[in-house]
Amino acid sequence: MRAAVMRDWQLRVDDLPDPTPGPGQVLTKVLACGICGSDLHMLQHGAEARRLNEEMAEGAPADPMAMKMFEPDADTVMGHEFCCEVVEVGPGCSNLKVGDVVVSLPVAFDAEGLHALGYSNRYNGGYAELMVLSEMTGIKVPAGVPAELAALTEPLAVGVHAVAKSRIVKGESAIVLGAGPVGLACVAELRMRGIGPIVVADFSAKRRELAAQLGADVVVDPRETPAIEAWRKIDGGSQLVIFEAVGVPGMIQQAMRMAPRGARILVVGACMQEDRIQPMLGIGRELNIQFVLGYEPLEFSGALEAIAEGKTDLSPWLTGTVNVDGVPQAFADLANPETHAKILVVPGS
Amino acid sequence: MRAAVMRDWQLRVDDLPDPTPGPGQVLTKVLACGICGSDLHMLQHGAEARRLNEEMAEGAPADPMAMKMFEPDADTVMGHEFCCEVVEVGPGCSNLKVGDVVVSLPVAFDAEGLHALGYSNRYNGGYAELMVLSEMTGIKVPAGVPAELAALTEPLAVGVHAVAKSRIVKGESAIVLGAGPVGLACVAELRMRGIGPIVVADFSAKRRELAAQLGADVVVDPRETPAIEAWRKIDGGSQLVIFEAVGVPGMIQQAMRMAPRGARILVVGACMQEDRIQPMLGIGRELNIQFVLGYEPLEFSGALEAIAEGKTDLSPWLTGTVNVDGVPQAFADLANPETHAKILVVPGS
Repeated sequence: MRAAVMRDWQLRVDDLPDPTPGPGQVLTKVLACGICGSDLHMLQHGAEARRLNEEMAEGAPADPMAMKMFEPDADTVMGHEFCCEVVEVGPGCSNLKVGDVVVSLPVAFDAEGLHALGYSNRYNGGYAELMVLSEMTGIKVPAGVPAELAALTEPLAVGVHAVAKSRIVKGESAIVLGAGPVGLACVAELRMRGIGPIVVADFSAKRRELAAQLGADVVVDPRETPAIEAWRKIDGGSQLVIFEAVGVPGMIQQAMRMAPRGARILVVGACMQEDRIQPMLGIGRELNIQFVLGYEPLEFSGALEAIAEGKTDLSPWLTGTVNVDGVPQAFADLANPETHAKILVVPGS
Repeated sequence: MRAAVMRDWQLRVDDLPDPTPGPGQVLTKVLACGICGSDLHMLQHGAEARRLNEEMAEGAPADPMAMKMFEPDADTVMGHEFCCEVVEVGPGCSNLKVGDVVVSLPVAFDAEGLHALGYSNRYNGGYAELMVLSEMTGIKVPAGVPAELAALTEPLAVGVHAVAKSRIVKGESAIVLGAGPVGLACVAELRMRGIGPIVVADFSAKRRELAAQLGADVVVDPRETPAIEAWRKIDGGSQLVIFEAVGVPGMIQQAMRMAPRGARILVVGACMQEDRIQPMLGIGRELNIQFVLGYEPLEFSGALEAIAEGKTDLSPWLTGTVNVDGVPQAFADLANPETHAKILVVPGS
């Protein structure tokens, strides 16, 4: 099968042997797989993140539930935002059958333990024509839901989780810094929860437009209007939660600087480099910083439900489609936010 | 009156005119005033903190409740942990009378607004023989409570507030980094709430001993045993809250590095310099960082109540007494944690 392969922090397209489903697993055809900013980050900063992971693990007790991660000097096929169709059922499966369309938490398991789908040497992710899934994690996509929208379950779940961790309630307001996929997912979830006003800041006019379509009340170019000024103009009084969804050095400090007294800052953007803050900014206003990662299984299935039931229309989010051979170019294109938000890999296209 | 005076970030002892109480104010004799680490910080890093304060205020709407702070090129008498005896009652007072022993939130107010007692050019703090208090903020110290212990109301309130903001509950456990006054106040409050185990880390044997006396279950020298290792040995399973009470660059990162998944970090130590963190440490484990400052009025009066009712015995905390002329030497002595925890200024001594 064709697959976009990462090795030694380089991306190439190659022919790999078709994978085979083991016990409790199904072989699927990838219908659509979103390209995630984390994968761009991984190519650029993966070596650094890996060192940090090793450091973090040092001295800590072994966690049997920890996911096995890839070795950088072996092939890894990334892609963890997939919607697939079952084409072959492995031994011992009872729930899924050929033809079922599914999404899944990006995790596979076997006798060795848990593997991070998209960051594993053993199990390939969705930047490929085929992939193996554990039957147990597969969630059937209701009939009539386009695979392209179902593939947005995973990134939407990131927003669902961030908003849940923020403990934001009606009557509180939100600023979202950055209208990339993570920021947009937060906006969509905030809107579904009826929270407002929502102020979104992004340099890109295209992304500001997407944020408005997904439910932002006010969008600003921070070079012209600081988000906090826009918020003060339309609110200024309610409890504020700031979602930092840019993920580059300096953004946490920027969020702290704008935050009014007692504000909560959700760090949703994954900054893999070292960062600098002024603790006194936090102390003086008793700020709270909550770092978040991923989602719970119920948040994932809830995200699919929201898409399937039309509670949120994420179609503006989809800005491009490539086949597997187009993945490296798509990675390059995503650097330009004026053109793209979410590019889907559709192997059949 | 004799007073320890700060001007241009230098400390001297001088004779100042006796202050006069205005309407709603009382003149008091300082019985005891604790020397606070914040004042040592202020002398060393005040200029930097001041710049940051101005930066923080920039663009924000004017807050009529904001406290007026001192100008560094005019005289300031610090000292905000005081217990005083009323010696003269100003016009319009109805509650306090001569001879009353009181503690007070370190704030004075007049027609101009709020003034931070101990950080004001207008109202001197407790490193002096006399001070003016607003009658409204004065809380009578119950008979029989030594002024030396009542003067610990303010630093204990800092711990009461930090523990309240941590939302820690029974069944959760705590690590306290640093057994200076702020760390010790956290330990005392955690113990009063029946929370444990409490692990305390400090380089100083003297301070570790104090922490144990105030209620720590385990004390460690972090050069020999990392706090997190000690915690794993006696607990390792409960939800952990880490109180960072050292307040120097690198400590937040150190707390993040040791924190298990989902831990909460309370930043109680006031680091006035820029600091560095690895956001991925927070993201990978979904850490929460709560910055805290000061206390609420009810936390302050609750701290006095705890001391008066003997719910906590803070006497081990008191390691020295000086008169006003001894303040500069006491500031120097406090740099050595092996000798001192809390030095009281007792003008009559």
